[in-house]
Amino acid sequence: MSLLNETLSKIQPLDPDLLAKAQQKLDNKTKPLGALGRLEEFARRYAAISNSLEPSTWKKVIFTFAADHGVVAEGVSAFPKEVTVQMVYNFLQGGAGVNVLANHVRAEVLVVDVGVDHDFGDTPGLIAKKVARGTRNFAKGPAMTREEAVAALEVGIELANGCRADGVAMVGTGEMGIGNTTPSAAIIAALSGRPVAEVTHRGTGINDQSLANKIRVIEEGLAVNRPDPHDPLDVLAKVGGLEIAGIAGLILGCAANRIPVVVDGFISTAGALIAAEFNPLVKEYLFAAHQSVEIGHRFMLDRLGAAPILDLQLRLGEGTGAALAMGLIEAGVKILKEMATFEEAGVAEGEH
Amino acid sequence: MSLLNETLSKIQPLDPDLLAKAQQKLDNKTKPLGALGRLEEFARRYAAISNSLEPSTWKKVIFTFAADHGVVAEGVSAFPKEVTVQMVYNFLQGGAGVNVLANHVRAEVLVVDVGVDHDFGDTPGLIAKKVARGTRNFAKGPAMTREEAVAALEVGIELANGCRADGVAMVGTGEMGIGNTTPSAAIIAALSGRPVAEVTHRGTGINDQSLANKIRVIEEGLAVNRPDPHDPLDVLAKVGGLEIAGIAGLILGCAANRIPVVVDGFISTAGALIAAEFNPLVKEYLFAAHQSVEIGHRFMLDRLGAAPILDLQLRLGEGTGAALAMGLIEAGVKILKEMATFEEAGVAEGEH
Repeated sequence: MSLLNETLSKIQPLDPDLLAKAQQKLDNKTKPLGALGRLEEFARRYAAISNSLEPSTWKKVIFTFAADHGVVAEGVSAFPKEVTVQMVYNFLQGGAGVNVLANHVRAEVLVVDVGVDHDFGDTPGLIAKKVARGTRNFAKGPAMTREEAVAALEVGIELANGCRADGVAMVGTGEMGIGNTTPSAAIIAALSGRPVAEVTHRGTGINDQSLANKIRVIEEGLAVNRPDPHDPLDVLAKVGGLEIAGIAGLILGCAANRIPVVVDGFISTAGALIAAEFNPLVKEYLFAAHQSVEIGHRFMLDRLGAAPILDLQLRLGEGTGAALAMGLIEAGVKILKEMATFEEAGVAEGEH
Repeated sequence: MSLLNETLSKIQPLDPDLLAKAQQKLDNKTKPLGALGRLEEFARRYAAISNSLEPSTWKKVIFTFAADHGVVAEGVSAFPKEVTVQMVYNFLQGGAGVNVLANHVRAEVLVVDVGVDHDFGDTPGLIAKKVARGTRNFAKGPAMTREEAVAALEVGIELANGCRADGVAMVGTGEMGIGNTTPSAAIIAALSGRPVAEVTHRGTGINDQSLANKIRVIEEGLAVNRPDPHDPLDVLAKVGGLEIAGIAGLILGCAANRIPVVVDGFISTAGALIAAEFNPLVKEYLFAAHQSVEIGHRFMLDRLGAAPILDLQLRLGEGTGAALAMGLIEAGVKILKEMATFEEAGVAEGEH
């Protein structure tokens, strides 16, 4: 059996008994029932995923997958393609947004080259897992072969398996790839059947004319490739990206290894959509970090049945939203673990 | 001149030049313009408040003001009045929700007795500033005299002045007082003229019958006291609370001392409303931590023109939401201070 199929078959639903026990534990804390709202939801689900009522939050890792996109030849981005490489070095030097925010919540950033069009040689700190030097231009034909897509999915799965071995408690997703809101919009359009114009937005900040061009390019790509919405591998290979595949694999691998996984914004959620098409049970293992400014994001979140944790008008990617959300999820877990009970504190309970 | 009037006269508008310089600095960071959304807003305003483009976030303090309410005699709360005292001890022992969340974001919790109906003696760690042993039942007459209200306001002002002396960089508000959603709803009803039923909710979790009673009690209190909506001291004294006054004073004092102040939920925002009636410029110095479950809260936030940072369905108070929001504001400030510029990182800028 392939690593992908083996992983898909390992994913189990959460144990309702554990969810109930976690809520019971929360209900004994010195506060009105349910008064910590979504923090309690985070704690309950985190406990059930981790199979513990005293779950660890140490350590936390964000994987930032980098890859290039042939479709940038169509002029879909405000930034030149070289920025993908430049930002990989920025991540490794600790200067990017995700570095600052991950450091703030005491998470580690690991940068994965899954498909950058550049020879990094032996760059220290970079996880070298290049499947191809970028995708092909999906406006003209498939972005990847099915084999390339599976290879990129399995990069993510192997990283998740490594997290299990290394005792990583919580994983965040992130990405860098100039042009990658384009395949992300193509994926939600392909899976949902929604008009491309309804799910396509400005990415890093293109103007009206470029947005019209981006919509046209995606429409062409869908017309040329005709991805099968019932076959997630077909959608991923034809109009996806290598970093999106890596993220989808990471999410599948986290679910198979019972590691809570925090999904960043628009591009990461495209990866989560692909993962959930492979196995809908992954939805129970993921946390949606935030509501992106990208207009297609809410359709993605609706499809996943996921309520975003934050709404801070972010549109940077990299894993920046995931970092912030990991801090809030950890706060919920600490409530479960550290708050005093009514009995311990000698506090009277209210009328229930 | 009284301490209150002196403080009111010291509050200045933010310097637009500093706001612009902070945004310029953010615009040189390695990200598309504006891509960190509200984090940039937090950073910009925090810098202007603190009068520095390299503002410190160390140290952070949450003041949890505790007080009792005569109006609990009317059966407005699901919890017995004794819980105010019990929770003060819980805060001092570090077992409450606010302790866990403040610790998570590396903030200190300082507990202030501004009006608890209990003799704490020499309790270590407690800031003893008792103005009265709780308010009187405002359903029958004024909750406080004007002198008591001013004394409680000045407790908050003095704490803010102390923060300036101690180099506290960011302040959060919090409270504990069984029954205190009742005066908070009365304050927004009195100031806005909205029907009591529109702004009154379940507090710690009362049932339908108790909610109907709570609405009736507030209506009675407003009819008996006729607070003057153009005189914030009159509203505060007649239907407010001692902890609400302390919070209002703290916010005024922070604005006068140029310290960013993070306002927790429903009760704290009632304090912010009173502060903003005294001097509308305080709105520039405060951050609204979260959208509370209490239905009256959005009317308060609208009146302040404040967009809440979080919406996690919290309804605990204590300063729990403020703690979480302080972590996010600090994240924004770190973006301003720690992220690499395009030049430093050798990254190409996009088309603007």
